[in-house]
Amino acid sequence: MMRFNNRNIHIGQNVQLGKNVKIGDNTSIYDNVIIGDNTIICDNCIIGEPTSNYYCDVNYVNPQLKIGTDSIIRSHSIIYAGSTIGDGLQMGHHSVIRENNILGNHCMVGGFVTILNGCHIGNYVRFHSYDEIGEESEIEDFVFFYPNVIVATDPTPPSNTIKKCHFGAYTQVTSNVMVLPGTDLGKHCVVTAQSHVSGNFEDFSFISGNPAKRVADSRKMPLFNNETRKRQYPWPYNFSRNMPWCDCGYEEWLKTEKE
Amino acid sequence: MMRFNNRNIHIGQNVQLGKNVKIGDNTSIYDNVIIGDNTIICDNCIIGEPTSNYYCDVNYVNPQLKIGTDSIIRSHSIIYAGSTIGDGLQMGHHSVIRENNILGNHCMVGGFVTILNGCHIGNYVRFHSYDEIGEESEIEDFVFFYPNVIVATDPTPPSNTIKKCHFGAYTQVTSNVMVLPGTDLGKHCVVTAQSHVSGNFEDFSFISGNPAKRVADSRKMPLFNNETRKRQYPWPYNFSRNMPWCDCGYEEWLKTEKE
Amino acid sequence: MMRFNNRNIHIGQNVQLGKNVKIGDNTSIYDNVIIGDNTIICDNCIIGEPTSNYYCDVNYVNPQLKIGTDSIIRSHSIIYAGSTIGDGLQMGHHSVIRENNILGNHCMVGGFVTILNGCHIGNYVRFHSYDEIGEESEIEDFVFFYPNVIVATDPTPPSNTIKKCHFGAYTQVTSNVMVLPGTDLGKHCVVTAQSHVSGNFEDFSFISGNPAKRVADSRKMPLFNNETRKRQYPWPYNFSRNMPWCDCGYEEWLKTEKE
Repeated sequence: MMRFNNRNIHIGQNVQLGKNVKIGDNTSIYDNVIIGDNTIICDNCIIGEPTSNYYCDVNYVNPQLKIGTDSIIRSHSIIYAGSTIGDGLQMGHHSVIRENNILGNHCMVGGFVTILNGCHIGNYVRFHSYDEIGEESEIEDFVFFYPNVIVATDPTPPSNTIKKCHFGAYTQVTSNVMVLPGTDLGKHCVVTAQSHVSGNFEDFSFISGNPAKRVADSRKMPLFNNETRKRQYPWPYNFSRNMPWCDCGYEEWLKTEKE
Repeated sequence: MMRFNNRNIHIGQNVQLGKNVKIGDNTSIYDNVIIGDNTIICDNCIIGEPTSNYYCDVNYVNPQLKIGTDSIIRSHSIIYAGSTIGDGLQMGHHSVIRENNILGNHCMVGGFVTILNGCHIGNYVRFHSYDEIGEESEIEDFVFFYPNVIVATDPTPPSNTIKKCHFGAYTQVTSNVMVLPGTDLGKHCVVTAQSHVSGNFEDFSFISGNPAKRVADSRKMPLFNNETRKRQYPWPYNFSRNMPWCDCGYEEWLKTEKE
Repeated sequence: MMRFNNRNIHIGQNVQLGKNVKIGDNTSIYDNVIIGDNTIICDNCIIGEPTSNYYCDVNYVNPQLKIGTDSIIRSHSIIYAGSTIGDGLQMGHHSVIRENNILGNHCMVGGFVTILNGCHIGNYVRFHSYDEIGEESEIEDFVFFYPNVIVATDPTPPSNTIKKCHFGAYTQVTSNVMVLPGTDLGKHCVVTAQSHVSGNFEDFSFISGNPAKRVADSRKMPLFNNETRKRQYPWPYNFSRNMPWCDCGYEEWLKTEKE
């Protein structure tokens, strides 16, 4: 077999591996990690990385890390102890998920991403690459972050204050966007590339600029999907790859959800 | 010897290593990789990383990866199966080259760079660091990308449409530039830092702003090289380090090329 | 013990390890490295990475790297040979410190940071994440860099000219800031997010925009710390975590310093 030959793997104490879990070369799994069935962890990863208390507390016990089923965690990634991650995680190379995070099912965390501690992240949320998601961020289902987004939380750097950000369902935060502390975006918002966002935005805001403003209703923007020829936003009518409505379409799926 | 002592190296099946190839500790080379003479691969790398089909196709065969001669690939880097890379590659730490890419000779890929799949990249192309180069980008010879450049390809995120970007020879894309889907830059263009570029630009455009515009002919910009005291652009008259004209000068080299 | 079980560790020649130094799995320490007491180096690191001369000079000797006491270097990080680093370094995952750097005591280098060669960095300097600090930068004590800051040094890319940047003590460079070659910031400056900075700025400048300008005296900005309710800047009166004045307050500490 090309890979997963159990070379130089270290498994700590009280680790529960589901059926058919595969672990890549040179990967370490520290204490108190639970991994669901069929999950694959590639080479050179660290799963259950001890938090900073490990270095100062002689009675340190590694907090439980739970990773769901059917996930792939690509090489050189690090997931700290103390988080709970749903099923179907897709994680890219060189990424870091810190402690005390909750991620739902079917999330994608691309390459070079950092998710700081204490975030609440829904289902089908995507972080494309090079994103840094600030502490305690609240991210609803189907929110996508494109490359190089920063979500900041300290309103008066440096301070001990965290003003967390909130992202409503389906909102799209495109490349190079800077999200300032305390930002609250409604559902189905679209933030254009390189915008500098702060404040509160209602549902369906199309947001652009520095400082970013609501320039339109996203549903009325003359942006058309190349395949469907329909208006692009709300995007779930035009995009279904790996989404729960990929077989039936968004409208049918919505009906099921409402029942 | 200080390094390259063949500790914890894994070499897959049907791997062809040229003469004097060195492989660093904890590096894995998967199936069907060809590496040219004198190439050095440092520690903790993965060469021939299987594509995502590996995880779903029971008949998966790793596509051939070819890396040329006289290259150095620094630690913690990942090159996927299925690309063809010329001679003299210099690759920094923690970078990723995805599948189905073609890179010419003497390219430099700095640290924390991601080259997504299906790009056509010429000779002497440089990616400084933290760049993400979108799918199917077409990059001619001697194009340099500075830190933190994003080349995006999806005009209506999220969608399945890829509008690829094109970069003419000698063009310089400086730090923090955002290149929007479908951008086409001519030869010898210069894009200033933090610009937001879309559309088509003719040869010798000096491009700046958000949205970026052609603000001048790059040959007429009053920017002077500190060593030669001549106008900086076109830059090949002023810069020759590691370039094919480093011994004879650009003018002489051009004559040879035209013959 | 959960970690530091000496699995697959490589220690080169003439390496001096202080008392109680711990080294993580799969970490290599190359020749002529000195590590102070109580320092912890986590998994998959490379300490004393040979400089590029190693690959072309048959008489190459690894330059000395000195790392102080009581430091933590997190996984997948790389420190080149030939630097001198003080005590109490905190270094995140996936970061790179190049050769010929001098760092003072109690510095923090977060995740995905690159410090290029030849920098002079004072005490208590922080680099949050994804920062690239250009060659020969001069950074005084207590300067903080937030995510995604680029400090550039080539005024006419590409060229062989380095115009280095200088950062006065206590200055705060917030997220996504682009610092252009030759920039000189005084003490206690504040640069707002996504600014594009060049030129010289006097002490206590509050700097914003593209191109960035001095928009106010930072001491007079109506920004208030959430805990102390006092004006945030100068920040040392409001923030003391891990600072040398954390027990006595900044005013008392200043008196001691002046004696």
